[in-house]
Amino acid sequence: MQEHVVPAIMSGGSGSRLWPLSRQTHPKQFLPLTGEATLLQQTAMRCRPDTDIGFTPPLVIGAIGQTAQVAQQLDAVDLAGGLILGEPAPRNTAAAVAAIALAAEAEYGPDALVLVMPSDNHIVDTAAFRTSIGIGLALARQGRIVTLGITPRSPETGYGYIQAGTPFPSGGAAISAFREKPKLDAAQAMLAEGGWMWNAGLFLFRVRDCLQEMERHCADVLTPVRAAVAAASVEGRVWGLGAADFAKATSMPFDTAVMERTANGAVVPVECGWDDVGSYAALWQLSAKDSRGNAVSGDHPVTLIDTDNLFVQANGVSVSAAGLKDLIIVATPEAVLVVHRDDSQRVKEVVEALKRGGHATLL
Amino acid sequence: MQEHVVPAIMSGGSGSRLWPLSRQTHPKQFLPLTGEATLLQQTAMRCRPDTDIGFTPPLVIGAIGQTAQVAQQLDAVDLAGGLILGEPAPRNTAAAVAAIALAAEAEYGPDALVLVMPSDNHIVDTAAFRTSIGIGLALARQGRIVTLGITPRSPETGYGYIQAGTPFPSGGAAISAFREKPKLDAAQAMLAEGGWMWNAGLFLFRVRDCLQEMERHCADVLTPVRAAVAAASVEGRVWGLGAADFAKATSMPFDTAVMERTANGAVVPVECGWDDVGSYAALWQLSAKDSRGNAVSGDHPVTLIDTDNLFVQANGVSVSAAGLKDLIIVATPEAVLVVHRDDSQRVKEVVEALKRGGHATLL
Repeated sequence: MQEHVVPAIMSGGSGSRLWPLSRQTHPKQFLPLTGEATLLQQTAMRCRPDTDIGFTPPLVIGAIGQTAQVAQQLDAVDLAGGLILGEPAPRNTAAAVAAIALAAEAEYGPDALVLVMPSDNHIVDTAAFRTSIGIGLALARQGRIVTLGITPRSPETGYGYIQAGTPFPSGGAAISAFREKPKLDAAQAMLAEGGWMWNAGLFLFRVRDCLQEMERHCADVLTPVRAAVAAASVEGRVWGLGAADFAKATSMPFDTAVMERTANGAVVPVECGWDDVGSYAALWQLSAKDSRGNAVSGDHPVTLIDTDNLFVQANGVSVSAAGLKDLIIVATPEAVLVVHRDDSQRVKEVVEALKRGGHATLL
Repeated sequence: MQEHVVPAIMSGGSGSRLWPLSRQTHPKQFLPLTGEATLLQQTAMRCRPDTDIGFTPPLVIGAIGQTAQVAQQLDAVDLAGGLILGEPAPRNTAAAVAAIALAAEAEYGPDALVLVMPSDNHIVDTAAFRTSIGIGLALARQGRIVTLGITPRSPETGYGYIQAGTPFPSGGAAISAFREKPKLDAAQAMLAEGGWMWNAGLFLFRVRDCLQEMERHCADVLTPVRAAVAAASVEGRVWGLGAADFAKATSMPFDTAVMERTANGAVVPVECGWDDVGSYAALWQLSAKDSRGNAVSGDHPVTLIDTDNLFVQANGVSVSAAGLKDLIIVATPEAVLVVHRDDSQRVKEVVEALKRGGHATLL
């Protein structure tokens, strides 16, 4: 029997920290932020069917209003053909993974293997990524629910951490502990201790194991999602999940719903130059820069005089700057954003303020 | 015989240090930068015919392509009716003053008094300004070529300075020395010494005295301009100066052509809250500000989070900023400018770079 490995992409999230590049109707995964292809396309292209792993076409879950965009983007890189699941409203990652597992079961049977990935990751070393997937797949074939843990580069306080326990002979290890977004001193202590990895939302499992663990640990998620899948409106390869049922699913992360409760968890370390492109500061880090550290992009002229370490994107409007350093400048025909690079996390506050100010059309 | 006092406004200059607010086709004097009225309108309104001085309607000289804009702006504040002289190309202020004097002679005779003013000055204390004009007019009636000297507030290096000599009984003084844009230590020494004033391009004279001094000291300006006026194409109140003749006038400032050469010069000090709105830093100084020093203007929403001393203009596009201080942010649908306030003089460099880069349509 042929083994199916299904790359499943979770295309939720609005990317509000990358506003105004990322808009509600056109969030960051649909943008070519770190190359010619969009983040969604790059994610799909990492798992092309013609690699040694033998992937199926990607299965994507995202907002029901964006399924056409997803289909168009995958088609543009010759990766159409997988199912696209439309969420009537976001219900966090446990419900999304449940829908993925149920759709994969319907499509490929209960023995199919599934690799769950966020749609907005940047990965430098695809070969290292695939090697870790290979190790993870071996564990998934043994019934493990596997998470790929990113070897941390710095004591980040914005991520969850996973601690590796007893190692397995085939690679990877049991999970010894979880720790949600730590304080800085705790994060530093974990880095010093070693064996801790960032939880990047990358999961590997066999369909029937995942469904069994969800049945056991979070039936309040699985049962409504099963009903939503049964009630789905099917249009070609797009399944619009039933809104009334999907809304009944408990909204919680897959980590807390399953990974922290299962006895069959495993973690496989991966060191692949991973980044979640979660802020303009991160985007600046990933961008090509001139000799003074300025990263310039967009379709309109950018004029810089005596500037250092700027991130400038000029979309539909020209940008000129003089005598500046360490700033983010993003210009679009509707909205201009200027923030200090150290404040790039505060773009969220800007978005909140625009909401409060009744300027939702800008978002 | 009725005495005519002609307010004459020189509307040259492109205001490139206020780009992209100020555009080549719509320079700063046509913009409402410091109030509801434009700088040109404010200049004209300071010399309304119904004041105690008894001004004629304003006479304006500016680019031939902008005479319709001038007429429309004066009409909007009920100050139409004066002549508008169209320059085929800019030839500096000596040629402009010559054209003004010749047009005033044709219109009001050789005994008319003329007050020459730049079109882009901001003046807080109009009463003090008019008092100094009164003193200057008395000197002009005696045949003096008068300049109004601005009492300096600081050792500016961007202006020319005039030193007052022997005082006249009726007020004002003979001119003792001129000094073009000094170094900082020289400017500081002049402020410490006292008696030095900024040369703001504000002149007062009787038409026949001005023409006589120009005949004597700069016939290479006066003769070609006289021919250009004689060859002017007249359309209603607009005189289009003859291009071939006007181009032959030596291009030099009125200060060097006449004021530094005449034996009949006089200076009258004026302390009226004068500013030439020569940079965004100056504009920020003149603007209304919130409690953290942010000056916000324009027709689109501006969202500021934790910012100090910003100048933000949002014209046709919204602007959001977080975690910044001392910046100039100007956004228009075509161009966005961001500069540090200390670098606001460098906007000129930006404009030069855009020219070199072939982006003249943005200017």
